[in-house]
Amino acid sequence: MQINRRKLFGLGAAGVAAAGTGALATRAMLDAAPPAAAASTSDPVSFYGEHQAGIVTPAQDRLHFVSFDVVTKKRDELVEMLQEWTAAAARMAQGKDAGTFGAVGGAPEAPPDDTGEALGLPPSGLTLTIGFGPSLFDDRFGLAAKKPAALADLPRFPGEALLPEISGGDLCVQACAHDPQVAVHAIRNLARIGFGKVSVRWSQLGFGRTSSTSRAQTTARNLMGFKDGTNNLKLEDAAMLKQQLWVAPGDGPAWMTGGSYMVTRKIRMNIETWDRAPLGEQQQIFGRDKGEGAPLGRAREFDPIDFNAKGQDGELAIAKDAHIRLAHPTSHGGAHLLRRGYNYVDGSDGLGRLDAGLFFIAYQRDPRKQFVPIQMELARKDLLNEYIKHVSSGLFACPPGLRDAGDYWGRTLFA
Amino acid sequence: MQINRRKLFGLGAAGVAAAGTGALATRAMLDAAPPAAAASTSDPVSFYGEHQAGIVTPAQDRLHFVSFDVVTKKRDELVEMLQEWTAAAARMAQGKDAGTFGAVGGAPEAPPDDTGEALGLPPSGLTLTIGFGPSLFDDRFGLAAKKPAALADLPRFPGEALLPEISGGDLCVQACAHDPQVAVHAIRNLARIGFGKVSVRWSQLGFGRTSSTSRAQTTARNLMGFKDGTNNLKLEDAAMLKQQLWVAPGDGPAWMTGGSYMVTRKIRMNIETWDRAPLGEQQQIFGRDKGEGAPLGRAREFDPIDFNAKGQDGELAIAKDAHIRLAHPTSHGGAHLLRRGYNYVDGSDGLGRLDAGLFFIAYQRDPRKQFVPIQMELARKDLLNEYIKHVSSGLFACPPGLRDAGDYWGRTLFA
Repeated sequence: MQINRRKLFGLGAAGVAAAGTGALATRAMLDAAPPAAAASTSDPVSFYGEHQAGIVTPAQDRLHFVSFDVVTKKRDELVEMLQEWTAAAARMAQGKDAGTFGAVGGAPEAPPDDTGEALGLPPSGLTLTIGFGPSLFDDRFGLAAKKPAALADLPRFPGEALLPEISGGDLCVQACAHDPQVAVHAIRNLARIGFGKVSVRWSQLGFGRTSSTSRAQTTARNLMGFKDGTNNLKLEDAAMLKQQLWVAPGDGPAWMTGGSYMVTRKIRMNIETWDRAPLGEQQQIFGRDKGEGAPLGRAREFDPIDFNAKGQDGELAIAKDAHIRLAHPTSHGGAHLLRRGYNYVDGSDGLGRLDAGLFFIAYQRDPRKQFVPIQMELARKDLLNEYIKHVSSGLFACPPGLRDAGDYWGRTLFA
Repeated sequence: MQINRRKLFGLGAAGVAAAGTGALATRAMLDAAPPAAAASTSDPVSFYGEHQAGIVTPAQDRLHFVSFDVVTKKRDELVEMLQEWTAAAARMAQGKDAGTFGAVGGAPEAPPDDTGEALGLPPSGLTLTIGFGPSLFDDRFGLAAKKPAALADLPRFPGEALLPEISGGDLCVQACAHDPQVAVHAIRNLARIGFGKVSVRWSQLGFGRTSSTSRAQTTARNLMGFKDGTNNLKLEDAAMLKQQLWVAPGDGPAWMTGGSYMVTRKIRMNIETWDRAPLGEQQQIFGRDKGEGAPLGRAREFDPIDFNAKGQDGELAIAKDAHIRLAHPTSHGGAHLLRRGYNYVDGSDGLGRLDAGLFFIAYQRDPRKQFVPIQMELARKDLLNEYIKHVSSGLFACPPGLRDAGDYWGRTLFA
């Protein structure tokens, strides 16, 4: 039986049984199943369902993303760790400690089962989403025959300058929450639990979700100052999600049915150069106006784009190589992405510039038909390329959701 | 006259005068003076006052800190930039664009006066606090005679491993806000305005304020999982602030009267090692229990510390070299600090570990009598040293507050 409330700390030195109840009580003990979308930013999001949480879940404001290398050679150890991770993730999504005995009830002579920094904080909409990278399907764990064709390594794109040390990985976990401390706590505890079996390969913090995933959300802005994700796939688009987002039976190996493929790209922006580009040029590059986010030639953000509209000068209002034209589904046989990227600032680069940009995350049914052709077109022609550089890349197969507390991350792949 | 409302975007292509009003209206146009402490996390904090905002202001949840090198050799250019910064900072503190013409009203052929990513966001309690580093008082700007004795370089502390490229700096700005996008926007626009006169030396993001600065705030937790800042100086302690925080007439050069000295230390934590330390050891190291944050031997967080209490084993409940004993004012002739540090995670370190810890910020009347002796004692004896490393250091003289819109950052120093 799972102990589903925090035990009490501080019994050692003072023997005071009531110590800690004040702070701990604010992090709710939740037994009822929480809803798929939190009503407030402090509420929990359900960990269970047909699909993993954290994909169509209305994008939370903060991200901690981590990629792991698997260092154990033993398949059983890997599976056991995934089971432990699942149990911890389910608890943390409810705002509980990572371990059943928590930081709270551990004996003084043992390390705590939870690192403690989220004590007193609400669930904060935490979602944890797992993905398996192409490298997991080598000969280490007997998974080669189960590798989906859609998980083929991405091609090399013109202009990219990928750093291998912050690219790829055997496993990834995307933690999204409305409080960065909650997202960081979750990743940190998974890394703690996985010690000796996995090793952190790279990790990325993000803020200011740049792509809304629900029509109930306003469109946020990227660090170029533009609204980003106006025409993103949204959770309300049921038919489109079925067609564009979720892996269907027959798409490939059965274990991915109900799952989705995630592509990550860390896109460094040349912030300082961009900031000296004229407003008109910035708007031409995106194909939208900066304030409202309306397609050029139109008035409102959500007005349909007219790619044939001409300005008073007789030129196309939206330039031939404008970002929204090149990326638009009509340029790619209707291919959409569900994006849920985040802005990042990683300090400065030692050359007097902020190290900042967009950590792009996109989900899709098949990257070969969606991300790859769209990005190839952008990499070749996008006017924006003068101001950005792709420095990290990741591709992960995110399995379907978990049925209940008896299920675990990777069951459909390993069982 | 200052144009104190946003102009409208998007007039170019579509000529729609009403474009943008929806999104922009959510970022309030404020003419009335906002209060010194915001009532909600979206409200503004007053930019003017006897002391700079961002010191005793109840600590906001997010930080973007930046250190600049001055690259111009001309004193006049530096002063002019500080005046431009002040005007931009005053606007941004009210939730307005950085420039009087904003991102909004710029001509299409000119770069925008604001980078745009905070459009539509509320003021979010933004405070911007400026400081001048010891290196500014060399022979470049004729300031040598005005250098306060209290701004003497910090001594070398045992065990520190400072990286010069993320230490020091001629100027710093501490941006605190409840929304990281607002803090990042502010620093980024100051860097944009300062282009050619200053260069970003280093920059640091932080979250989860670890030291409350008001009794109205709960004590937050650092990434070791412990409550941090229980006995911090608080804005309600008027007599203590006068004695410990603010520079008084006669303390040194008159230009610093009403100011305060800021020390920053980036303290990397060996997260993975700490997470495998037994709970009892963790508590002994800090001298507090982990759940409630009570001093060992006591029941509640704010119970007075009894340094003489003994446990059932006859040993001191709070060990001789426990953190709270070594750092306590009673060990340093009553010396206090006003801390307002933040947790940070800067991704991973390439060795399988999270690059995480505490970005420590402390304000005080004289570092020679406060930070230096306290830190020397900690550096020599603190049991915590096994788990931490100081990798960056900064010292800055933060001048008094601004009287009104005619005042500017550095007036008391340069005028």
